[in-house]
Amino acid sequence: MKQKLAAGIDIGGTNTTFGLVNAAGKILLKETIFTEHFPLPEDLVAEVATHIENAMLQFSNEYELSGVGIGAPNGNYFNGSIVFAPNLKWKGIIPLTAMFESKLNVKALLTNDANAAAIGEMMFGGAKGMKDFMFITLGTGLGSGIVANKEMIYGHDGFAGEIGHVIMFPEGRQCGCGRKGCLETYCSATGIVTTYKQLSATSYPEPGEDEQLINSKFIYEKALEGNKHALEAFAYTGDILGLALANSVAYTSPEAIFLFGGLALAGNLIFKPTIDSFEHNLLNIYKNKIKILPSLLKENDAAILGAASLIWKEIN
Amino acid sequence: MKQKLAAGIDIGGTNTTFGLVNAAGKILLKETIFTEHFPLPEDLVAEVATHIENAMLQFSNEYELSGVGIGAPNGNYFNGSIVFAPNLKWKGIIPLTAMFESKLNVKALLTNDANAAAIGEMMFGGAKGMKDFMFITLGTGLGSGIVANKEMIYGHDGFAGEIGHVIMFPEGRQCGCGRKGCLETYCSATGIVTTYKQLSATSYPEPGEDEQLINSKFIYEKALEGNKHALEAFAYTGDILGLALANSVAYTSPEAIFLFGGLALAGNLIFKPTIDSFEHNLLNIYKNKIKILPSLLKENDAAILGAASLIWKEIN
Repeated sequence: MKQKLAAGIDIGGTNTTFGLVNAAGKILLKETIFTEHFPLPEDLVAEVATHIENAMLQFSNEYELSGVGIGAPNGNYFNGSIVFAPNLKWKGIIPLTAMFESKLNVKALLTNDANAAAIGEMMFGGAKGMKDFMFITLGTGLGSGIVANKEMIYGHDGFAGEIGHVIMFPEGRQCGCGRKGCLETYCSATGIVTTYKQLSATSYPEPGEDEQLINSKFIYEKALEGNKHALEAFAYTGDILGLALANSVAYTSPEAIFLFGGLALAGNLIFKPTIDSFEHNLLNIYKNKIKILPSLLKENDAAILGAASLIWKEIN
Repeated sequence: MKQKLAAGIDIGGTNTTFGLVNAAGKILLKETIFTEHFPLPEDLVAEVATHIENAMLQFSNEYELSGVGIGAPNGNYFNGSIVFAPNLKWKGIIPLTAMFESKLNVKALLTNDANAAAIGEMMFGGAKGMKDFMFITLGTGLGSGIVANKEMIYGHDGFAGEIGHVIMFPEGRQCGCGRKGCLETYCSATGIVTTYKQLSATSYPEPGEDEQLINSKFIYEKALEGNKHALEAFAYTGDILGLALANSVAYTSPEAIFLFGGLALAGNLIFKPTIDSFEHNLLNIYKNKIKILPSLLKENDAAILGAASLIWKEIN
């Protein structure tokens, strides 16, 4: 009998990455194309489907394709459509799973990138065997996926898990969503840049600094050199993230919270202040029993692995 | 074949109420005893079990007992024990389901009172057929139960759903939990009393007022009379509750949020400001599609019905 393979497709504003993933979470193929080269989603779907079909030909003695999992901004699990994604050039509602199903004749499933990565963590990462956990991506924004009772929480409309848009400070920083004080305006790559610039405002730009070059990696390197404002920026970010995560625990009491993405790679610079603030702000009954952990998914594989995991979760 | 009955037991600091509930949610028997008359939990269990056994005798031609559901403060679903409940005289860990099972030889299930009522709302109230909803009790404190994917979220430790202890204002009101600014210090019967007293501080006590008599019902009646401070107290409470519920939606995107308990009985005095603030503070994708509704459970029946629903949910 042939073994099963799942395709994983991650559609981003700039790149679309896709690949084939086996039941052990091994990526057998990985390719990237430019999303923006395809003004029509149909054309991107046709291109990706052709690549997947051709790739399956070389594996056809051993494997068969079981399904296609897709991670995409504003991807809705219930209707299989991308719904008004501000970061994509395609407008309106794009029935993505229907498009892939008609091209490849296998089941297609869609969700947003953070949910997909959360399922990847559950199937192949640090959340294996966990019944309840949260997954936080600290990228340009703050994305999240919440698993309770071994099931992804999609909510009644497929849009659950927007912890980045919890209002932390009603009169706080302006958020891209139109409201003020959302968590992601503080705790994200963008947020820490704002914080660093505010902290160093009096001496800004510091000698040798070019405003355009200040990103979270720059601040990370500054912090490693012992720069006071960079260290303070990490401490401040962790302080707010720890409070937000302590509040989050009051909803689903997870066994662990996984941090993923650029900022999470800063190690103790972000984990220490986050965990300190988390434990300080936790309700007594939750103290000292909920782990905040780095994701075990590799930065470059997470998107494909997560998307393919939608299929592996369905099969299991 | 005999029909099934479930016993529902609600253990509170003052009273323990129990009854027998049929599959349609009809309460066939309801009794109340004083919790404090039983210095040992074993004695209360024996008393309640005897009452239930005797009651079952009169129904024995038609019904058989399928199980015992229990709602109690700090009741833990996973281990069936009351765990260090500050509002009960019994200290430490009380293995309540084991006690009832050995007395009555049927399955016993335990959770806290808010979770039990949430399951009651799902089985017999306004949440029938809903996959995702939240249930909020506005009593002395603020309790909550969250259902996602048709399952109660107990969390990894059985203590999920403590929305009353989300920190709204890190430097806010002192909470009984030892921290500051918890939601329930603002949005509860206790919280609105504090708000009313603060608002009327300059003229406090107002002519004819006795400080001891100021409770949420008093403020409700004052508001109906058009009292400015009472009306402001409801508006302020709804303002904060609406923000907290809007943030809550970002976790599980429920179809509806049910409000239960004394304050929820104030009708539009509390619902209007809550819904206004809720819609104002919601992330765009959630606006105008999530209902805030009064619970359909009767105030006096909810505790027994909710507790018994633990068994009915298990059977279904």
